[in-house]
Amino acid sequence: MKEILVLNGPNLNLLGKREPEIYGSLTLAEIDERVAALAVDIGILPRFVQSNVEGVLVDELHAAMRWAEGAIFNAGAYTHSSIALRDAIAAVGYPVIEVHLSNTDAREEFRRVSMIGPVCVGTVKGFGWRSYTLALRALAELIGEGGD
Amino acid sequence: MKEILVLNGPNLNLLGKREPEIYGSLTLAEIDERVAALAVDIGILPRFVQSNVEGVLVDELHAAMRWAEGAIFNAGAYTHSSIALRDAIAAVGYPVIEVHLSNTDAREEFRRVSMIGPVCVGTVKGFGWRSYTLALRALAELIGEGGD
Amino acid sequence: MKEILVLNGPNLNLLGKREPEIYGSLTLAEIDERVAALAVDIGILPRFVQSNVEGVLVDELHAAMRWAEGAIFNAGAYTHSSIALRDAIAAVGYPVIEVHLSNTDAREEFRRVSMIGPVCVGTVKGFGWRSYTLALRALAELIGEGGD
Amino acid sequence: MKEILVLNGPNLNLLGKREPEIYGSLTLAEIDERVAALAVDIGILPRFVQSNVEGVLVDELHAAMRWAEGAIFNAGAYTHSSIALRDAIAAVGYPVIEVHLSNTDAREEFRRVSMIGPVCVGTVKGFGWRSYTLALRALAELIGEGGD
Amino acid sequence: MKEILVLNGPNLNLLGKREPEIYGSLTLAEIDERVAALAVDIGILPRFVQSNVEGVLVDELHAAMRWAEGAIFNAGAYTHSSIALRDAIAAVGYPVIEVHLSNTDAREEFRRVSMIGPVCVGTVKGFGWRSYTLALRALAELIGEGGD
Amino acid sequence: MKEILVLNGPNLNLLGKREPEIYGSLTLAEIDERVAALAVDIGILPRFVQSNVEGVLVDELHAAMRWAEGAIFNAGAYTHSSIALRDAIAAVGYPVIEVHLSNTDAREEFRRVSMIGPVCVGTVKGFGWRSYTLALRALAELIGEGGD
Amino acid sequence: MKEILVLNGPNLNLLGKREPEIYGSLTLAEIDERVAALAVDIGILPRFVQSNVEGVLVDELHAAMRWAEGAIFNAGAYTHSSIALRDAIAAVGYPVIEVHLSNTDAREEFRRVSMIGPVCVGTVKGFGWRSYTLALRALAELIGEGGD
Amino acid sequence: MKEILVLNGPNLNLLGKREPEIYGSLTLAEIDERVAALAVDIGILPRFVQSNVEGVLVDELHAAMRWAEGAIFNAGAYTHSSIALRDAIAAVGYPVIEVHLSNTDAREEFRRVSMIGPVCVGTVKGFGWRSYTLALRALAELIGEGGD
Amino acid sequence: MKEILVLNGPNLNLLGKREPEIYGSLTLAEIDERVAALAVDIGILPRFVQSNVEGVLVDELHAAMRWAEGAIFNAGAYTHSSIALRDAIAAVGYPVIEVHLSNTDAREEFRRVSMIGPVCVGTVKGFGWRSYTLALRALAELIGEGGD
Amino acid sequence: MKEILVLNGPNLNLLGKREPEIYGSLTLAEIDERVAALAVDIGILPRFVQSNVEGVLVDELHAAMRWAEGAIFNAGAYTHSSIALRDAIAAVGYPVIEVHLSNTDAREEFRRVSMIGPVCVGTVKGFGWRSYTLALRALAELIGEGGD
Amino acid sequence: MKEILVLNGPNLNLLGKREPEIYGSLTLAEIDERVAALAVDIGILPRFVQSNVEGVLVDELHAAMRWAEGAIFNAGAYTHSSIALRDAIAAVGYPVIEVHLSNTDAREEFRRVSMIGPVCVGTVKGFGWRSYTLALRALAELIGEGGD
Amino acid sequence: MKEILVLNGPNLNLLGKREPEIYGSLTLAEIDERVAALAVDIGILPRFVQSNVEGVLVDELHAAMRWAEGAIFNAGAYTHSSIALRDAIAAVGYPVIEVHLSNTDAREEFRRVSMIGPVCVGTVKGFGWRSYTLALRALAELIGEGGD
Repeated sequence: MKEILVLNGPNLNLLGKREPEIYGSLTLAEIDERVAALAVDIGILPRFVQSNVEGVLVDELHAAMRWAEGAIFNAGAYTHSSIALRDAIAAVGYPVIEVHLSNTDAREEFRRVSMIGPVCVGTVKGFGWRSYTLALRALAELIGEGGD
Repeated sequence: MKEILVLNGPNLNLLGKREPEIYGSLTLAEIDERVAALAVDIGILPRFVQSNVEGVLVDELHAAMRWAEGAIFNAGAYTHSSIALRDAIAAVGYPVIEVHLSNTDAREEFRRVSMIGPVCVGTVKGFGWRSYTLALRALAELIGEGGD
Repeated sequence: MKEILVLNGPNLNLLGKREPEIYGSLTLAEIDERVAALAVDIGILPRFVQSNVEGVLVDELHAAMRWAEGAIFNAGAYTHSSIALRDAIAAVGYPVIEVHLSNTDAREEFRRVSMIGPVCVGTVKGFGWRSYTLALRALAELIGEGGD
Repeated sequence: MKEILVLNGPNLNLLGKREPEIYGSLTLAEIDERVAALAVDIGILPRFVQSNVEGVLVDELHAAMRWAEGAIFNAGAYTHSSIALRDAIAAVGYPVIEVHLSNTDAREEFRRVSMIGPVCVGTVKGFGWRSYTLALRALAELIGEGGD
Repeated sequence: MKEILVLNGPNLNLLGKREPEIYGSLTLAEIDERVAALAVDIGILPRFVQSNVEGVLVDELHAAMRWAEGAIFNAGAYTHSSIALRDAIAAVGYPVIEVHLSNTDAREEFRRVSMIGPVCVGTVKGFGWRSYTLALRALAELIGEGGD
Repeated sequence: MKEILVLNGPNLNLLGKREPEIYGSLTLAEIDERVAALAVDIGILPRFVQSNVEGVLVDELHAAMRWAEGAIFNAGAYTHSSIALRDAIAAVGYPVIEVHLSNTDAREEFRRVSMIGPVCVGTVKGFGWRSYTLALRALAELIGEGGD
Repeated sequence: MKEILVLNGPNLNLLGKREPEIYGSLTLAEIDERVAALAVDIGILPRFVQSNVEGVLVDELHAAMRWAEGAIFNAGAYTHSSIALRDAIAAVGYPVIEVHLSNTDAREEFRRVSMIGPVCVGTVKGFGWRSYTLALRALAELIGEGGD
Repeated sequence: MKEILVLNGPNLNLLGKREPEIYGSLTLAEIDERVAALAVDIGILPRFVQSNVEGVLVDELHAAMRWAEGAIFNAGAYTHSSIALRDAIAAVGYPVIEVHLSNTDAREEFRRVSMIGPVCVGTVKGFGWRSYTLALRALAELIGEGGD
Repeated sequence: MKEILVLNGPNLNLLGKREPEIYGSLTLAEIDERVAALAVDIGILPRFVQSNVEGVLVDELHAAMRWAEGAIFNAGAYTHSSIALRDAIAAVGYPVIEVHLSNTDAREEFRRVSMIGPVCVGTVKGFGWRSYTLALRALAELIGEGGD
Repeated sequence: MKEILVLNGPNLNLLGKREPEIYGSLTLAEIDERVAALAVDIGILPRFVQSNVEGVLVDELHAAMRWAEGAIFNAGAYTHSSIALRDAIAAVGYPVIEVHLSNTDAREEFRRVSMIGPVCVGTVKGFGWRSYTLALRALAELIGEGGD
Repeated sequence: MKEILVLNGPNLNLLGKREPEIYGSLTLAEIDERVAALAVDIGILPRFVQSNVEGVLVDELHAAMRWAEGAIFNAGAYTHSSIALRDAIAAVGYPVIEVHLSNTDAREEFRRVSMIGPVCVGTVKGFGWRSYTLALRALAELIGEGGD
Repeated sequence: MKEILVLNGPNLNLLGKREPEIYGSLTLAEIDERVAALAVDIGILPRFVQSNVEGVLVDELHAAMRWAEGAIFNAGAYTHSSIALRDAIAAVGYPVIEVHLSNTDAREEFRRVSMIGPVCVGTVKGFGWRSYTLALRALAELIGEGGD
């Protein structure tokens, strides 16, 4: 069974406790469960990691080179400024999909452009926790598992 | 059965004949078929429209107010500059999902920002024809049909 | 009796059905009626045209060269970006007055500057349907009919 | 009878003596007369004030809180830069209409954007002295007097 | 005999009636005649199309894929902003030459940069109707007909 | 006993009457009282001045060179654009502290940067009337009176 | 007794050893002592944390949700660029006050704008270690302890 | 004998007391004396005015229309932002020469561009008090008095 | 027989030896020959000059005032920045046509705008050596020799 | 007798023959004569140099280190872009005064800022040939000769 | 023997495994060996540290204050945005040399400017692993060891 | 023995006489000697050229195509703006290394970006004359001579 990394960046550990009108009322653990449930259905083994530290996210992307065939990545606030994460994604070789819970286009101006977007395969954003399950379906296709 | 609009903008009628390294080798009709196939599975009735004329796309969005419960919209080149389409989406009331075949972030600078993004529910981009089927799944959820 | 064009651009056909907190609750037909009523009083014959297509608006401005002595133009979303409409207004020779229902200065940043403003005679904006009747009075003065 | 403030900013005291190709050949007193004449017709009592001092214009806007039901304001050169006037208009509570004799859009680039526009009700510009009488009609409507 | 498309964009239908100090006094029909005359000489069959609608110009570029070996394109006002036309030119495969009657560099700042320039073969501008005949000579060379 | 200037700029005379959700419900006189009360406690003699006129604020800063050992200055709207006030503060020699009732960072973009900030000692903002008393404590320290 | 977080960001551990002409000659421990001394006086219990790691600062802000009623935060260099810290402050719910030892307005251009400012209550900067004690007084007021 | 206005703007009343390393050690009165001495020699009658109020400077420029044949104007800080002074200079008709004591190009970035420069005859800057006497010689030439 | 200047700027002496994928494989001498051949046909006498020195190109434009009736000018890298060449072209009086071998629009961003364009008659670019012969035809027309 | 350099940059050799409405009808030689005449009067020995080559102007500034006590420099078009001339002026040690015949502020936007201004003593511009004689007077003062 | 810090930032731990066409095929350990070999030759003792965490890099720079006489620093992606690293370098006192394996100028636009450059002694970039050995030679000179 | 070009641009002929606090006290001849000394050691034959003329530097780069295997280039002020030198370096084929005596990042903003950087192999800056010897070592490696 193919393994993938589901990586979450800064402040996503607060999900469900923080600004539910923007991010929804599910906790990150609850989202992970829903992703895991779909993953089982389509034969994917996800591993979940969250960190608030930019460099630790870089480390996790590197570490996954040894076992992951792809990643779903919500880089949170680092999305818009982190060249280090961009370089890491470009370096690791496996496909990475950018996800966001909220529609970042509908928020502050500085959230309009993604620094990591150009090195990801694609983006799913604005669908709450379903952004993750949609991305999982997309990633499964890319790495040759599951399907529509 | 709930009906949705699948709307395609400028140059998408050339799909399959145009720069396949960017847009893939399927024609728009072939993509429509795949979308229709999934739609049947999840109980959605899609109607497909394509136009190269910005104002006709506005007309189609308006006309669908009478019958559609949502729309999947690939605005193509108009994505990045059309205030008229933005205003139309804000006006029609039903949910609209922005899709792109290619990862627009990985192309020219002027494709980095979406003018219609702030008034759409969310975006799916970079997955070729699967951007449409993923968006269909998301839209089905939003309007209360189908599911993961 | 002198004839004028009252030209409306994209999405204005939705008036009364769309975001009444911004645009008011009158339909475009109802606004046309009020303009027509005042026009009768001051001896002007208005013709009303609306289109969502930028190029059709150009066509209409051209066509009116054969009969109109002036125009009142709400270019809607095209106001802020259309060089084609700007060129058309500069070319037609008769006076054109820019109108807007809402106060565009009080909305998004991209609505602050008008591309057609420099080639119009003047602007009336922010007074709802009365922007049109005020513009009608101004135009009547300019073409030598009616008056205060 | 309802009272309104007709406020004029810097250099407008020179009207009629200064660049008539831009501003017309009427003096400010002559414009005031025409405004007064229409005001009588529609049952409005205007008071006229002019100052070249930004802070005095702020003072006048404040002072009118005690008696005015609205204002017509040609802020002249301060239109494009004065945050103090913007704050004053936002603070006074009564409706303020921005007017300009010339079509500021057709002049230097720095006259394209109005700093006070976002806190005014609307704008009338480009019609010479008639900008004032049109604004008077609009204001009369807003405060419930006169009408078309 | 090889066929080419001579495509004209917005407001060019007004040629000869509009601002002759910028665009010259010939009508578009008269320019077409001169282009046709030279074309005969060098063994090219031109077809002439004009539209004010951006999307119709896209349609025409697409349609010509079935018969044209090249195109001469005066995109008028759309030159400076249309990503849709840029995408169309990039897609059609045959060579397209950008032309302008006036020297767009000597006009407003917003006419300094061409959005379609990067996907055209080259540009001829500033020579009035001769911009077209010079472009015809260039195109004939490119597609292997006629010569200097 | 050491004397200081407490200087307030445009529109601050309206405090308590104007947008209380931004500026609080105290009048300027009431704020002055609270500042005076604390001043007595820490042995400082404040003099209070308010003007809406930029140049008069310059005059007051100059005049205070003869008697003040420091100043607390809320320049209001002039904060963001006045080079004249910046030059005055740089010239007078005594320490000046910038204060704001509201958190200017949380408002419009044009309030993000202070033109006078670089020549002031420091800034206290966002604490309502307490911005003044905090600034008073800071100033007292700077000029060698009172203390924590 | 109410508890607050006093959080310091990158390079502040070097205080007293680093560029004293900008930051003063006190060490961070000495500043903490002075803050603690005042805190005792006004019945506040401060906890002091410093880290050079952006994500650890995010962690600390999160962790304090369980016990703190407010925070004083000198984000140092991260002030000007960290969206992650901005998001954390917006999420935690308790009031946060931005402080700086130096007057950041008087330094390099890139220190003029604060990314975290819009989500803090207010700012105190430019008063050396007293920026912290002034902020402490302000925070005590906000959370209903102590007073002037 | 021809009369001219020598007009000085904000903070110039502090000359000699303020930052002598930038502005020199002469007071404004002493500069006036040196200007007056040269004026006598070349048959010009200067009148000296200084104000810190932008609008009063506008008033003075207007008032001088009745008697002055030219003006020497050091607009100080208003040089870089005042559209009102620019409009006044454009309106008054007599020639105005811009002067500065310091070389404004060698100071802060915001002093690099003059808002009033385009409507003045010319500029003399960087020569201390001699900027005024050089400007006086230039103005005398322009209005047909004195000479080199 | 009328004489013209064919002027080439920096690095064009390397033609044929330098980046042939951009500039083609002909040497400058070979291009000159082709231009000369066409010139003979249409009764024009060209003189060819090349220099890498901006000021020498200015000198050559000046010198040609004594004998040339027009010029074809490939300013190479100086095209995008040289105000000196712009001023020279504006000064010399005879018509100058801007040419480029490559389509500068399709290269780096800094090659998008021409500093000399606004003072030239027009531009021909993107056609390799034929840019010169097309320009020659255009210039011959302008100075009344040869023709299509 | 003290010697100075009077240095003129690109296109100034055309004076009198070029755009007299901007630059006046005197030739450079005639201006030199007038400068020389005044120089004799005030005991200064000027040497006149003109070149169109930026690097030669650098050479001349260097060479004058051996004999000149100051320079008057009209850098023409290089004024606005030449860092090489800026570096040369900063290096030579003797005082340099920037002059312009026309009022560069009243021309194109790109002539608003001087690259060499920050390293010159001051600027005289807008007075035609008198800009040079005024600058000569200023320079004579600076190097201790002549006087007002 | 003098000790120096050789510090490497984000993603440099992947060297040799990541995009060898940009970064070369040596691992970081292999580069360290080559640096160590040269260091031995010139009597320097290097210590090697790598981290992906910005704040840990700050910590390492601080820690080295106790033992290092200089540092060679490849800040990787943080080079272009980290104010925290800039502040750390400015604070530590010992000389720091910026190095890059690739020529950052030849890559994306956002890699053109270094945020840490202004506080480093100098920069060596574009020479692969030799950037480090060249920097080592430079640093040895600066701290008085070894030499050319 | 392999030959290289050591090329120096504007104002570098003044080295040792000009601003030694920025550029050091060695003359260019003395630097050349040190470069020559190292060159002998590592078997390289350098030729030294300096010019203040941009176009002559282009000429020199071209001329060296016949004999040089590489170049060390300090383009001085032309570094930041010269497209002509960029084009020349891109054209010549042999490797060019950019050097600077000073750390250009620590100086004016306009020295932050190098126009020639993207076409050079790499850059060494900030080490005074040692920038040249370090570059020489790097170049020797690149062309297969000498070594560490």
